[in-house]
Amino acid sequence: MIIESHAHFTTAPQALDAYRGRQLSQRNRPTKGRALKISDQELADSLRGHLDRMEQQNVDRMIFSPRASGMGHEVGDFKMSLYWAQTNNDLIARVCEMFPDKFIGAAQLPQSPDSTPDQWISELERVVNELGFVGCIVNADISGGGQPFTPRLGDEWWTPLWEAMAGLEVPGLMHATSTVNPALHLNGSHYTNHDAMVFFELAWSDVLVRHPDLKLIVPHGGGSWPFHYNRHRSLHVGTNREPFEEAIKRIYVDTAIYDRDSMDMLLRKAPIDNILFATEPFGTSKHVDPETGRTFDDTTAFIAENDTLSAEDKEKIFSGNALRIYPRIKL
Amino acid sequence: MIIESHAHFTTAPQALDAYRGRQLSQRNRPTKGRALKISDQELADSLRGHLDRMEQQNVDRMIFSPRASGMGHEVGDFKMSLYWAQTNNDLIARVCEMFPDKFIGAAQLPQSPDSTPDQWISELERVVNELGFVGCIVNADISGGGQPFTPRLGDEWWTPLWEAMAGLEVPGLMHATSTVNPALHLNGSHYTNHDAMVFFELAWSDVLVRHPDLKLIVPHGGGSWPFHYNRHRSLHVGTNREPFEEAIKRIYVDTAIYDRDSMDMLLRKAPIDNILFATEPFGTSKHVDPETGRTFDDTTAFIAENDTLSAEDKEKIFSGNALRIYPRIKL
Repeated sequence: MIIESHAHFTTAPQALDAYRGRQLSQRNRPTKGRALKISDQELADSLRGHLDRMEQQNVDRMIFSPRASGMGHEVGDFKMSLYWAQTNNDLIARVCEMFPDKFIGAAQLPQSPDSTPDQWISELERVVNELGFVGCIVNADISGGGQPFTPRLGDEWWTPLWEAMAGLEVPGLMHATSTVNPALHLNGSHYTNHDAMVFFELAWSDVLVRHPDLKLIVPHGGGSWPFHYNRHRSLHVGTNREPFEEAIKRIYVDTAIYDRDSMDMLLRKAPIDNILFATEPFGTSKHVDPETGRTFDDTTAFIAENDTLSAEDKEKIFSGNALRIYPRIKL
Repeated sequence: MIIESHAHFTTAPQALDAYRGRQLSQRNRPTKGRALKISDQELADSLRGHLDRMEQQNVDRMIFSPRASGMGHEVGDFKMSLYWAQTNNDLIARVCEMFPDKFIGAAQLPQSPDSTPDQWISELERVVNELGFVGCIVNADISGGGQPFTPRLGDEWWTPLWEAMAGLEVPGLMHATSTVNPALHLNGSHYTNHDAMVFFELAWSDVLVRHPDLKLIVPHGGGSWPFHYNRHRSLHVGTNREPFEEAIKRIYVDTAIYDRDSMDMLLRKAPIDNILFATEPFGTSKHVDPETGRTFDDTTAFIAENDTLSAEDKEKIFSGNALRIYPRIKL
């Protein structure tokens, strides 16, 4: 069985962006409470790419969340983010209801620079308890690379969210949305830098010691820590911390990296029990590699063909680990 | 011959930080024009670690620049940064004069959020023409991770600096200083994220096409691009850009990464002509690896023992490439 643990609804009908355009330009007033108008047929059509991918690559389920760059936490206030999160989450819920044996919902949270984590919990509870979602996206850089800065993940500021997530048994995929810094490129540097920042902090701080039931997944292989492995180890040694290689046993990563060489490095360095299969359809790596004639995100073989992993290891990465850390997934 | 291309004066006598403390607390007034008081003996003593390292590891020369985290571009105004850069550069010049067969100077620039690149050039000209410096440090994130944002490196804003550097035949080591973002860790995520941002932009923009004589070195293996190689390739393919693997032939990287596995990856993916040996003494990776009993930054063997590199390749990495792109180095 294969579970794609990191898929975004990047192909949503244009009506969704149109709704957002009106919401932003009219400062929330006219669109509040108005239903997003997308027909069942339009919705099904917009999912064709994801369904084809599942069929072509023998993917059984996708954990499906709103488009990451569209979350726009940095724009507007809490109410703006709340309505927008509700709108996106309701649309994801329709997708999951329409294809219950294909898509599993993961939520956008109403993060915004003027809000605190306790304000995000009611939307999380709503999507989990009423819509059957199994996970959520957590953005560690709410303002998108500028001020006001988001407290580091080890800060007590985050505690209400961590407690709510652990209580609901809902893991978080740590994922940025847009950046306001013109020197950063959304897909080229902002996302992966966010991941590197997150991974470092999760190993460095005691947040996962204080919250042993909290499951956080750092996407894109976890940013850059495998490449800077001994840099991290040295910093831990130099401060008499728990060794880095021990601390990372509490952190989950996904495999949304796109070459065999890097996948091999990730498989060598991350604990096998902590790796979730992901290719992140459809985004950065949806293009065709002229060297192989296949899309860059066609990476199943990098795991399936790896000759140091046991069959049991491969099963864990493809689905076992996801089923373990996402207990709300019911097949 | 071995040239350490990336060494900072992290061990400078306390008088230097004391000077900075007074400069900042008294808003530049009392220290302007006052000489930094460090005796020759104190200066020589403070270099003992670097000199020992050179002897122990057969390093012939170090390209020596002020402490990166001390540059403090984000603090104060242009005049503050200018006096501080002059003070640091003069101290580096004393080091180079004291040990002319050991240290080669690279400059701190008076970058500050309120200044533009044309304002940094006279200090660059001073250190090159009067003090014999061969290179400089360029910080692509002047405000240290917040507003006001620094224009991206492909922006025309940078042109005066690039023209001055190319004209003087002075390469730039792209290196951040501190960060004001509490969610970033200086050594654990800020520096390497800066590098990842820089490397992406140098490959993505046409800045190195427009300035063919400009030599920019991205430290720490270049950030994270080797691990995200096909992510970058896909982004280039998807926008009909020059292939990533072609674009990176204009970018230099150094080897300040600390495990053999990552070094092997860098050596597989970066053009051999573009790799400069570096271990960055003394900082992040100066601690002793309990697994080997050697310091993490003791990485010479990773290159010397690599069995896919030719002797000629190794010579290029250890010194040939540095001598080529730093034409002002006179042995």
